[in-house]
Amino acid sequence: MIKVALDAMGGDRAPRVIVEGAAWASQTFDCHIVLVGKERNIKKFLDKTDYVKDKISVVPATEVIEMGEPGALSVRRKKNSSISIGIDMLKKKEVDAFISAGNTGAVVCAAMLKLRTLPGIERPGIGIIFPTPKKPCMMIDAGANIDAKAMHLLHYGIMGSVYSKYILGRDNPTVGILNIGQEESKGTEVIKEARSFFEKTNLNFIGNIEARDVFTGKIDVVVTDGFVGNIVLKVMESFADASSRFLKEELTKRLLPKIGAILSLPVYRAIRKKIDYSEYGGAPLLGIDGRIIIAHGSSNAKAIKSAVRAASEYVAQKLNQHIIEGMEVVSGR
Amino acid sequence: MIKVALDAMGGDRAPRVIVEGAAWASQTFDCHIVLVGKERNIKKFLDKTDYVKDKISVVPATEVIEMGEPGALSVRRKKNSSISIGIDMLKKKEVDAFISAGNTGAVVCAAMLKLRTLPGIERPGIGIIFPTPKKPCMMIDAGANIDAKAMHLLHYGIMGSVYSKYILGRDNPTVGILNIGQEESKGTEVIKEARSFFEKTNLNFIGNIEARDVFTGKIDVVVTDGFVGNIVLKVMESFADASSRFLKEELTKRLLPKIGAILSLPVYRAIRKKIDYSEYGGAPLLGIDGRIIIAHGSSNAKAIKSAVRAASEYVAQKLNQHIIEGMEVVSGR
Repeated sequence: MIKVALDAMGGDRAPRVIVEGAAWASQTFDCHIVLVGKERNIKKFLDKTDYVKDKISVVPATEVIEMGEPGALSVRRKKNSSISIGIDMLKKKEVDAFISAGNTGAVVCAAMLKLRTLPGIERPGIGIIFPTPKKPCMMIDAGANIDAKAMHLLHYGIMGSVYSKYILGRDNPTVGILNIGQEESKGTEVIKEARSFFEKTNLNFIGNIEARDVFTGKIDVVVTDGFVGNIVLKVMESFADASSRFLKEELTKRLLPKIGAILSLPVYRAIRKKIDYSEYGGAPLLGIDGRIIIAHGSSNAKAIKSAVRAASEYVAQKLNQHIIEGMEVVSGR
Repeated sequence: MIKVALDAMGGDRAPRVIVEGAAWASQTFDCHIVLVGKERNIKKFLDKTDYVKDKISVVPATEVIEMGEPGALSVRRKKNSSISIGIDMLKKKEVDAFISAGNTGAVVCAAMLKLRTLPGIERPGIGIIFPTPKKPCMMIDAGANIDAKAMHLLHYGIMGSVYSKYILGRDNPTVGILNIGQEESKGTEVIKEARSFFEKTNLNFIGNIEARDVFTGKIDVVVTDGFVGNIVLKVMESFADASSRFLKEELTKRLLPKIGAILSLPVYRAIRKKIDYSEYGGAPLLGIDGRIIIAHGSSNAKAIKSAVRAASEYVAQKLNQHIIEGMEVVSGR
C-alpha cells in the first residue's frame, strides 16, 4: 500500500482541516497516511472523525515552521519541524511521498537540502494545475525558482510534458513559453534562449503563448519562471474570489433579496466549482529525487483529500522514472 | 482648446469605432480631435455620425502599421503611417497629445525615437488604471520596458505617484513593488535594489505588495517591470472575460432558459461594468517628453471617448511638469 506523510501543521487552518482531509482520504483511497506534527493536537481532531483506523498513523514533530518565516533559515533551525521530519521520512524511504500545505519556501529548501534533484535537473519547479473550459492545464514553475535560467525553463517543459502525459492522460502534450506576444522576437533574453533550446527537442513545442490563451484550453503545459508563475497564480486566485463576490452581491441586489439569495446559491456554487483549485489537490514539486506535493495554504479538507490522491498518482505512475527517461531523450543519452 | 491627434487606423475595429469614439468625444468634451489615417475611409465613417463639425479634422496618413508587426522596424519603414505622422505632429507641437489603440510596440518605439524621455528618465512606462472595490489603482509598467532595471522601477514609482495625485486625486498616494511575498527578503535582485532606492525617497512607499492585495484597493500605485505587468494585465482581462461567460452560461442553464436569459442581462451587465476597462480609457505612456495615451487594441467607441478625456486631463493637469518636479525632488536637485 502506498504510504504518504502529511504535514499536519501546515496551512491556514491546520491541524484541523488537514486531519479532516486525511480522515476523508482514508475512507476513499487505498493508501496509508502518516500525519506529522503535534501529536496531542492531531489526535484531538482525529478522534472527532470517522477515519479508517489502520490507514492513518501519527509521527510526532514538536516544532512548526510558520507561514511567514524565511524558508532556508527555518529549515536549518527547526530540525524537529513537521516539514523537516516529513522530508527526512521521505529520504529514508519510510514513506513514498510527502504533502504539505505549509510554508512553500521551507518545503522547497528542505527538499533541495535533504533530497537533491533528479539527474541533470538543477532546480525543481512547482507545477500547478488549473481548469480551462476544455481540459486542465499545467503551469510550471509557480514559485520554486524566481531567477530561472533558460536551461531551467527547458527542464520545466520536459517535466511538465511528462506529468501531462502520465497523470493528465494527454497524448503528445503541447508545451509553450509564457510570453507577452507570440512573435519570436518577443520576450526577455532568457526566454529567447529557452526557445532555441526547446526547438531542438522532440517535445510538442508550440513556441510562445500569451497569457490570454492560457485559460482557453489551447495548451497543455505553460512554462514560466517562478516569479511570473507565482504572480499569475495569485492574480488568478484573487480574480476568482472577486468574481464570486461580485456575483453574489449583484444577484442579491438586483432581484428581490430573498429570491436573489435562493437563486444565487446554485449559480454561485457552480462558478466556484469551475474555478475551485481544491478539485485539483496540490501541486507537485517536480525535479526532486522524492515525491512532494505542495498544497495551497488555504486548503480545505477536500483539497487535502485531493492532494493525497495526487500524491498516490505521482507514486503509482512512476513519474520520476519517466522524468529521468525524458531528460535522457533530450540530452541524447 | 486642447488639440488631440487620434490614430484612426489603430485597433481591432479601426477605423470605424475610432471615428465613432471621436464623434462621441466631440459632443462631450471641449477639445479638438485630429483623426490621422486614410482620409477617404475616415470620412466615410465620420459622415455617418453626428460629430461636432469644427471639433474634428482629418490629417491623411497613407500607411498603416499592423498589430503583429515588430515595433522598431515598422516605425523606421513606414514613415507615412498614422502612428509616425501623429507623433511627428506631437513633436512639432501641432497637437497637445496623441492617442493610439494600434501597435503598442510601434507607439513606444516612435515615441522614444522622435520625442525622447523627460529629464533623468531612461525608459518610459505604460501606466494602466484598473478598478478595485475601493478606488482605481495604477499599475506601471504594463509593457513598455521588459528588461527593467532597479532605477527604472524607481522612476515608475515617481511617475505613478504623480499621476495618482494629479489625475486620480489621491492625497499622498501609496506606492508598492509587485512581489511574490511581503517580506524584505523576497524577490529578484532588481526588486531588492529598487526597494532600497525607494526607501531613500519621500514617496509614500509601503514596500512589497502581493498580487492578491493589488485588487483589494489597498494601494494606489503598483510598480512592476513591463514583462510581469503585461502578463498581469492579460491575465486580468482573460479572467474578466471568462467570468462573464461562465456567469451567462450558468444563469441560463440553471433557471428556466427564458427567465435565466432575462435575469442574466442586468447582472451580467453590472459585472461587465465593474471589470470594464473601457471606463478608464487608455493608459498614459509616462516618461516621454510628449503626451501619449495607449488605448486597448479591442477598444470600443466608449473606450476611445474615455481615452480622449484621459488625454485632455493629461494636458490640463500639466502632468509632465509635475513629473519633472517629482524627479528633481528625488534626485535632490
